[in-house]
This record gives sequence, structure tokens and C-alpha cells, in this order.
Amino acid sequence: MRIQDIGERELISIIHRLQARPPMGYIGIGDDAAFIPPSAKGILISQDMLVENLHFRLDWMTPEQLGEKAVAVNVSDIAAMGGTPLSLLTSLSVPSSLDVDWVESLYRGIAKALDRYGVVLVGGDTVGSQDRITLDVTVIGEPGPFGPILKTGARPGDRLFVSGRLGAAYAGFTLLSHGVTWPSTVVAERSVLMAHITPMARVRVGQQVGPWAHALTDISDGLVSELEEITRFGGIGAVIFEDRLPIDQATQAMAARFHSRATDFALFGGEDYELLAAVPPSRVTEVQEIEARTGVVMTEIGVITEKPGVRMASTEGEKEHVVQGQIYNHFPVA
Amino acid sequence: MRIQDIGERELISIIHRLQARPPMGYIGIGDDAAFIPPSAKGILISQDMLVENLHFRLDWMTPEQLGEKAVAVNVSDIAAMGGTPLSLLTSLSVPSSLDVDWVESLYRGIAKALDRYGVVLVGGDTVGSQDRITLDVTVIGEPGPFGPILKTGARPGDRLFVSGRLGAAYAGFTLLSHGVTWPSTVVAERSVLMAHITPMARVRVGQQVGPWAHALTDISDGLVSELEEITRFGGIGAVIFEDRLPIDQATQAMAARFHSRATDFALFGGEDYELLAAVPPSRVTEVQEIEARTGVVMTEIGVITEKPGVRMASTEGEKEHVVQGQIYNHFPVA
Repeated sequence: MRIQDIGERELISIIHRLQARPPMGYIGIGDDAAFIPPSAKGILISQDMLVENLHFRLDWMTPEQLGEKAVAVNVSDIAAMGGTPLSLLTSLSVPSSLDVDWVESLYRGIAKALDRYGVVLVGGDTVGSQDRITLDVTVIGEPGPFGPILKTGARPGDRLFVSGRLGAAYAGFTLLSHGVTWPSTVVAERSVLMAHITPMARVRVGQQVGPWAHALTDISDGLVSELEEITRFGGIGAVIFEDRLPIDQATQAMAARFHSRATDFALFGGEDYELLAAVPPSRVTEVQEIEARTGVVMTEIGVITEKPGVRMASTEGEKEHVVQGQIYNHFPVA
Repeated sequence: MRIQDIGERELISIIHRLQARPPMGYIGIGDDAAFIPPSAKGILISQDMLVENLHFRLDWMTPEQLGEKAVAVNVSDIAAMGGTPLSLLTSLSVPSSLDVDWVESLYRGIAKALDRYGVVLVGGDTVGSQDRITLDVTVIGEPGPFGPILKTGARPGDRLFVSGRLGAAYAGFTLLSHGVTWPSTVVAERSVLMAHITPMARVRVGQQVGPWAHALTDISDGLVSELEEITRFGGIGAVIFEDRLPIDQATQAMAARFHSRATDFALFGGEDYELLAAVPPSRVTEVQEIEARTGVVMTEIGVITEKPGVRMASTEGEKEHVVQGQIYNHFPVA
């Protein structure tokens, strides 16, 4: 059955039925606006738009996976402020010739991810489209006990930590670009495809690193790009220790297969959705402990410097040398 | 200059410069998420997506007008809860071949409307598109002193009030469909074109009628459609007094020109963005006084009934007769 056969109102009912009931006090889908009860902490809000064939391809992922990913990348923005995600709105633009099953699967994926992060769908919009699918998600959260943790605020001497592994999402993207699709029976392929298709938002890491961090962001546009953002104000810079970049074996293997440097995937590949935190040296122990509590690897990958610019260092013997004045993005445009 | 010549980051800077600075305590564009300070009243939130050639046509309105309208239709959802709009996020998907001037004009229109309603832009997203423009707006507000005023809650005997005039936006849409474009030198044409192109959100009316209303909504999908929504739960109905529908002369003239009934424009034409309130009989005087305070006409157009269904009555002598069992939507699909 196609959307044009059932109409917008029935489609909204279907979407509604697939979602958990919002908790008491909330007003959800169906009224002019949603109502979210007072928070003494204020609210965090972020909006991310995904456009077919630019941010996702229908032959690369199922609608359910797209739904999961759309929630994760938005929730990641709340994690990147050290906050807790609470509610979500979705605007969906779809051609009326699209199968209703497709929309149901999308919202099943959305519901699955909402459940994972403890978030409720409170509203949104469903409209037509001439050809492409566009999905725009707004996520609302509340900051941690010390307020929102911004991108700015890093100071020279701060240690740079990242959660998880870097470059895997780009390795997955590279595979997909070369016609390898999900699911693959090769373990390494599966691992990097998963990283690209269904990334996880690091909410617990953000909540726990937030209180110690001078600056916090998620790595959606690549590590170097995010470091440029973090060091953009205040005339500071950063040195990355190349040898310490957390790159897993699957990503190494995929980079080698495509005659690329895994380090480049880690430095410039986007969509890792890991967190990047600048933490004062006195708090390094607290951050290291987060690994045991969350099960997510926390790696110290560099340091904030007085000297502006983002640079790379490598270890020779015990001493680190800055190997180039400025990192040049020699990454092929995706 | 085209968007592809300057890139996304520069485009965001341009958008940023066109906006007023958010007030103290807010964190706006540029971080992972925006921060909005605590409100003891909770928040209202709504999201509306506008798609090129479905919700707007570039040859029917300027980008500045589109920006104004996108803000107004979203702010209207907050007015429809009796609330006060506070902040806004915009997601824009545009082809990179589009002229940067176009985006600047759009955001000038957005800034103009934000200023009108006292709202600040706190974030959003700017992404590419293959061909069409999609604009998705999220508006955040806070409810009035008695909380959000819902669509549901009307009781038999409640008087139905609408703000402003009905049917004008549809008259404007009809003109545009027949090739008459803005600006027209004919006063009646200008008036209805304005109603369609740059509707006004009735924020002050909503704030003032909210405390007295059992139910409140905005008329975005036509009066009858909204009455069906209001009466959908609780097994109630409504009678509309046909003779009392507030239809202005320009709308009457345009309906006559296209051999249509102006009443149909008022009953079924969408996009009026006027407010519809169900008010207990004891509060009719208070609602009538809103007209003097806001300068917006408030018209009593009907009554909530125990009998389900939306019906029409007309006045013969002093007595009103229900003229048909159920209103049938004989309106041509736009």
C-alpha cells in the first residue's frame, strides 16, 4: 500500500501507534504543539537534517537502520553538551508513491533507538515530497549539573580524550562506495559497515566526562575539523599524537585494502560520533575511570597548546616530535 | 555567487550575521546544541516542514516572504496553545547551485518575522539538496499561566470564536493558481495575496483568549477540519452559523470572480492561521473585549453541541436552523 492510498492523517496514526506513550505531564503528537514539563536546568536543543542521496542512500541501509541512525546522530549532539536526551520531534518529507511499509519500518527504527536512549517522540510533521526523502530531527535534552559543556573553553595543557575508535565509519563508507553492502559475512566488513550505518551516541560518556571537561564536542565532521572548532577561539592550538589514535583492526584492514592510511580515516573521516573532550591534567584519572564504568574505551590522543593550529606528533623513543607545522587535509572528498 | 563557491561554513556565518544576538543566558548557533534557560512553565515545541512546489512556489513569493511565512506558521502553533514564542531553529536544504543572495534574503525575512514576534534564532542545520528547497522550522515557546490550551476540552454549550477573517488565504491561493502574482495594483487582489503569502500569527489573541478557552487551535487546514479535530474526542459536535462567518469584501469579490462560494473558502480553505477557541458562555464578554485590546476582530461563529458532527445553521428571521446533517467537503482539491 502506498501513502497516497491512506492519506496523511492515517499515516500519522500509524506512526503514533508505533511509539511508546510519553510519560505523564508530556503532551505529545496530535496537538498544535508538544508540551514538555519544566526543567530547572534549562533545555538543550539541536536539529539535524538528513537528505536522501546526500546523507543516506536507500540501497545502503534499511529504513529501520535509517531511523536508528537519525536518532543517534541527533542524540549525539546532546551527548556532546554533556546532557541527557529527553524528547524528539521528526519532520519527514516523502513522495506519496512510497510504500507505507517503508515509513512504518523507519519509525520502528526510530522507536528502537528512542527506547535505547530513553527518549520519547513528542511531535513533528509529515509532508509530501516530489521525489526525495528528507528527514529532519529535533532533539531536546537537559544539561548536566554544571550546565552545558561547550566547544569553546579548552586551555593550553588540557589533555585531549576521545571515546571509542576513530575512522571506522569512514571505512564503512568506503566499503559502501565500492559496492559492498550490509550485511556482509566478513567480520571486519560487518564491523565498519555497522559503524557507518548504525553509530551509537555516547550519552553516558558525555554525562560522565562533562563535569571534568573544559570543552566537549562530538566528532561528526572528522577529528581535525572538530579540533579546529575547539581551538578556533582563544588563539590556542592542539597537537595530536599519531601513534595513540584509537584505530581498530577492521579499520586498519579496510584502509590497507583501499590503499589508504587508516590514520587519515581517523583524522579526517566523518560520522564517527565519538566524543572529543579537553580535560585539565588534574582530571585525567577521573576520565580514565569512565572507561571501566561505561565499557567505552577512552584514549588520550593529544594536548591543547598555546601555539595555534592543529599539528601532529609522533613518538620516537620516549620523546614526541611535532612532525609538521599544520595538518593538511589531503583526504579525497567523499 | 553560488553556495558551492563559498561552502557551508561561510554560509552559516552569513546567516549568523543576519540574526539578532540571543539574550544573555542563551547559547545559540555554533555549538553542538543550543541552550535555552530554565522556564518554570515548561516548554511548548512544534515543527513544520515546508517543501518547494508543495507548500511554496518560488515564482509566487520572494525568499524574504517565504522566510516570514515559515516563521509565522510555526509561531502560530505556539499561539494555538495560548503560549508565548521564544526561540526558533531552522533546517534548510538547498541545492549548492543556488545563489547565496537567495539564502540571505530568506534569512532576512526570517529575521524580520523573528523581530516581530520577539523570537530568537538559536540553531538549526544547513545542508545540500539535489534540486528542491526544503525548510523545516522548530519553534519553542512557553505556555500561559494556566498551562497549554489543548485542542481537546470543549464542552457542549461552549461558544466558538474565531480571530480575524476567514477564507482570504484561500482566495489568495486561488489568484496565484490563476497566474495573478504579488504585487498586484488591485487593492482586493493585494489583500488576499498578502493573506496567503504573509499570514500573521495571532500570538496576542492566543495569550488573551487562552485563560478563558476550553479548547484552542489555529486554523491551518480549514475551519471545518479544525472543528472536526476539536470535537473528535468526547463524542461532541459543533454548529456553525453560516451568516456570521467573518469573510471580508476582498475574499467575497475573489470568490465571485472564480464562480465559487466565499463561504466554502471560509469553511474549507486552509492557511488562514486564525485562532479558533471554544469558550464557556460565562466568558463571552471577556473574549469580546480582546478585540479592543488587540485590534483583531473576534467573531462568535457557532456553538459546541452534544450531538456529534460538524453542521451548519443559517438564520431565518430570528431563529437559526441547522441546514444539513453533516457538512460535506465539496471543495475542489487544491
